[in-house]
Amino acid sequence: MAVRFADRMGKIEGSAIRELLKLTARPEVISFAGGMPAPELFPVEEMKKVSVAVLEEQGRVALQYTSTEGYLPLRQKIADRMNKTLKTNVGPDDILITSGSQQGLDFSGKTFIDKGDVILCESPSYMGALNAMKAYEPEFIEINTDNDGMIMEDLEKVLASNDRVKMIYVIPDFQNPSGRTWPLERRLKFMEIINKYEIPVIEDNPYGELRFDGESLPSLKSLDTKGLVIYLGTFSKIFCPGYRLGWTCAAPEILGKFNICKQGADLQASTISQMEVSKFMDIYDLDEHVEKIKACYVKRRDVMLKTMKEEFPDCVEFTHPQGGLFTWVTFPEGINAGEMAKKCLEKNVAYVPGESFYPNGGVYNTCRLNYSNMPEEKIVEGIKRMGEVLREELAKNDEKQLATNK
Amino acid sequence: MAVRFADRMGKIEGSAIRELLKLTARPEVISFAGGMPAPELFPVEEMKKVSVAVLEEQGRVALQYTSTEGYLPLRQKIADRMNKTLKTNVGPDDILITSGSQQGLDFSGKTFIDKGDVILCESPSYMGALNAMKAYEPEFIEINTDNDGMIMEDLEKVLASNDRVKMIYVIPDFQNPSGRTWPLERRLKFMEIINKYEIPVIEDNPYGELRFDGESLPSLKSLDTKGLVIYLGTFSKIFCPGYRLGWTCAAPEILGKFNICKQGADLQASTISQMEVSKFMDIYDLDEHVEKIKACYVKRRDVMLKTMKEEFPDCVEFTHPQGGLFTWVTFPEGINAGEMAKKCLEKNVAYVPGESFYPNGGVYNTCRLNYSNMPEEKIVEGIKRMGEVLREELAKNDEKQLATNK
Repeated sequence: MAVRFADRMGKIEGSAIRELLKLTARPEVISFAGGMPAPELFPVEEMKKVSVAVLEEQGRVALQYTSTEGYLPLRQKIADRMNKTLKTNVGPDDILITSGSQQGLDFSGKTFIDKGDVILCESPSYMGALNAMKAYEPEFIEINTDNDGMIMEDLEKVLASNDRVKMIYVIPDFQNPSGRTWPLERRLKFMEIINKYEIPVIEDNPYGELRFDGESLPSLKSLDTKGLVIYLGTFSKIFCPGYRLGWTCAAPEILGKFNICKQGADLQASTISQMEVSKFMDIYDLDEHVEKIKACYVKRRDVMLKTMKEEFPDCVEFTHPQGGLFTWVTFPEGINAGEMAKKCLEKNVAYVPGESFYPNGGVYNTCRLNYSNMPEEKIVEGIKRMGEVLREELAKNDEKQLATNK
Repeated sequence: MAVRFADRMGKIEGSAIRELLKLTARPEVISFAGGMPAPELFPVEEMKKVSVAVLEEQGRVALQYTSTEGYLPLRQKIADRMNKTLKTNVGPDDILITSGSQQGLDFSGKTFIDKGDVILCESPSYMGALNAMKAYEPEFIEINTDNDGMIMEDLEKVLASNDRVKMIYVIPDFQNPSGRTWPLERRLKFMEIINKYEIPVIEDNPYGELRFDGESLPSLKSLDTKGLVIYLGTFSKIFCPGYRLGWTCAAPEILGKFNICKQGADLQASTISQMEVSKFMDIYDLDEHVEKIKACYVKRRDVMLKTMKEEFPDCVEFTHPQGGLFTWVTFPEGINAGEMAKKCLEKNVAYVPGESFYPNGGVYNTCRLNYSNMPEEKIVEGIKRMGEVLREELAKNDEKQLATNK
C-alpha cells in the first residue's frame, strides 16, 4: 500500500500528553501530567437521578437527533451563567454547543486559517490548541509573556509588522500551562490593540471559574465592543469531562461559520448529554458544586507550592496560580526537563515537559505540573521524589559546567 | 468588523437538510426529509437501567476523560459484531470511536485531501459527507450510477486518466440518497480496480444491518486485502443517534492518522456514552433490537412504495430499496423538485430535493424520501398530498412544453 496522505498530516503530531497519559494510567504512578479533574468530586449520585429523570420525562427526544446549535434550555443556562460570572451580555442564540471546548479550537483553525496564515499565541501556550490548529497549516508567532501574561508591547510590534495575522489565541485566566492570569490593565490594553487591528481573538477559558484567591477579572468577551472575541467555555473542569460538552460564544457572523463546521464535523453534540447537564443545573446548584471543587483544589495547590518550596533548590522557579489546575516550573538552564521526566517516571512520578507548549520549540528547561488530580499526600510524595531527581540533575549539571569552564 | 475568513469557508454550505429540518419540526408536518430513526423504537426503559448501572459500578471512570481511541470493551464488541455481520477479521485496536460516523467523514477529508485533490463519489451521494469534505477544498468527480450502484467502467476510466484522485467515497448498502445496493460482482470488480490503483476508499455503512429483503453481501472491508478500505460505522440507525457514537475501522497507519485528527478535534468520544452503549450490549440483545427496527421499517417502506405506485403518475420513477431508510424519486425532466418542495411544504409535506446530493449540481428533477420516521398512516397521507402537487406540476409542465412546441 502506498497511500498518499494530505500534506498537513506531516505537520500534526499526536499530543505528548495523550501519549504520556497511557504510561501514567498505572495506579502506582503519581501523575502531575494530565489536566484531569479530581474524580472523587464528580456528582455520581446526582447524575443517577438526573439520567433517569431525563429518560422518564423526554426519553424519545433525548435519544433522537437534535439541532446543530444545541439544546435550547442548556444554551439559555450557559448564556445566563456567562452573564453572571463573566459580565457578558449574551443570549442563547450566541451559543453553539461543542464537543468540549477542544472542538472550538479545531473550528477556529478551520474558520480562519489558510495555509501560511499567522496565529499569535502566548509563549508558552496550550499544546492541544496548537496541535488542533496545525491541521490548517498556519505559522505560529509566539508573543513573550511575563508573570502577568502576554506582553502587550510585543503583541503590538508583531501586529504592526505582519499582515498575515488571522487570529490570536489566548488563555487569560490561570493559563495552561503557566497558571498565570492577565491583570485588568493588560486586558484593557489588549482590547485596545485588537480593536485597532481588528483581528479575531480566541479566548479559551476552561478554568476561569476556579479562582481561589483575589478578585474575578472581566473576561475579554465582556470587554469586546466589535464582536472580535470568540469565547470558548467547557463543562469539563466545573462539572465533569466525561460528557464532552463545551460551547462557543461569538458574534453571529462568526458563530454561523462555526455552526457550518459543526454540521460537517459531527452534526451536533450528544442530545442526551446536553439534556442531562441542563437537568443537573435545574435540580442541583452548579455554583455549589464549583465551590466544592475550589475548596479541594486550593488545598492541593497550597500543598504543591509549599512542598516545592521545601524540596526544590532555590534556583528553581515556579508560578503561584490564583486558580485553575497548573503551576509552571522553570529549572536552571542546562537542565533538560524531558530527560529528567524519564528519570522521574522510573520513580513513578510523571509531569509534562514544557517543550511542546512552545509551538516553535527550543525551550527545554520548563515543565507543567497539575495539582487537581492527586490527593495531598501523593502530591507531597511526588514532589519529594522530583526534588531528589532534580538535585542529582543539578549536581551533574554543575560538574558539566565546571568541566566546560576548565 | 472586517474579519477575514479562510478561503474554504466560501465553499462549504450549511446542509440543506439541517435547515429544512427546522421547518419540518412542526408537529403538523409529515416529514420524509430527515434521515431520522423511529423514536418510538428507542430503548428508553432499557437505558434507564443501563445508565444507573454504569454510574453505580464505575461512576468516577464514566465521568472522567478516557483514551482517544475509545473505551476498550466497546471497541471489542464493535470488532466482534463487524466480524459476525460483515465477515471482516478485525480486533479492537483496528477501531477508533468517533462522534457519529459523520466525524469519520470529516477525518477522511482531513487525512487525505490537499486543496485541489480529487474525491470520487457516486452520483448522487450523501450531501453531509460531501459538505464535510468540502472543508478541505477538493474537486469532486461524480461516477455514474445505475440501479446497481456505481458503474465500474466509468470508475476505471476516471482513475486511468486522473492522477490527483486521493480518495473514493462510497455507500454500497442501501445508499443515501438512492437506496441502491451494489451486487456482489460489482463489489469484486471495485476491489480489483482499487487494488490496481491503490486509492483509499471510504466505505460508509450506516444502514447495512437494516436489510429487509435478499441476502447480506460482503462489505468492501471484508474483501480488502491491501488495507485500502476505511470502514465507517455508527450506532445511530441500529440503536439511537442521541449518543453520537460511531466508529472508524482502518489499517493501522491510516487509523493512526485518524487518531491524531480525533485528538485535535475533540480529544475523545463521550466516556459515559461509550460505557452506556457497551453496557446495553452486555445486558440486552442488540440483534433483537435491530430485528424490531427492521420489522417496523419494512412495513413503512412497503406502504410508501405501494402508495407511490397508486398515487404518482407512471412517468415518475422510484427505487425499491432492499433495506435502509430512503427511496429515491425521479420526476420527468422539467419538473423542478426544489420548487415543488415549496408547494408540498404548503400542504405540510416535506422531502429533500435531490440537487444537493450532486456535488457538482445540475440535476433538478429528483428527490429523496425517508420512510423510517413517520407512522404508516402519515406516509399514506403524505404521499397522497405529494401526488396532488405532482399532478398539478405535470399539467403545468405539459402546457409549457405545448407552448414551446407551437
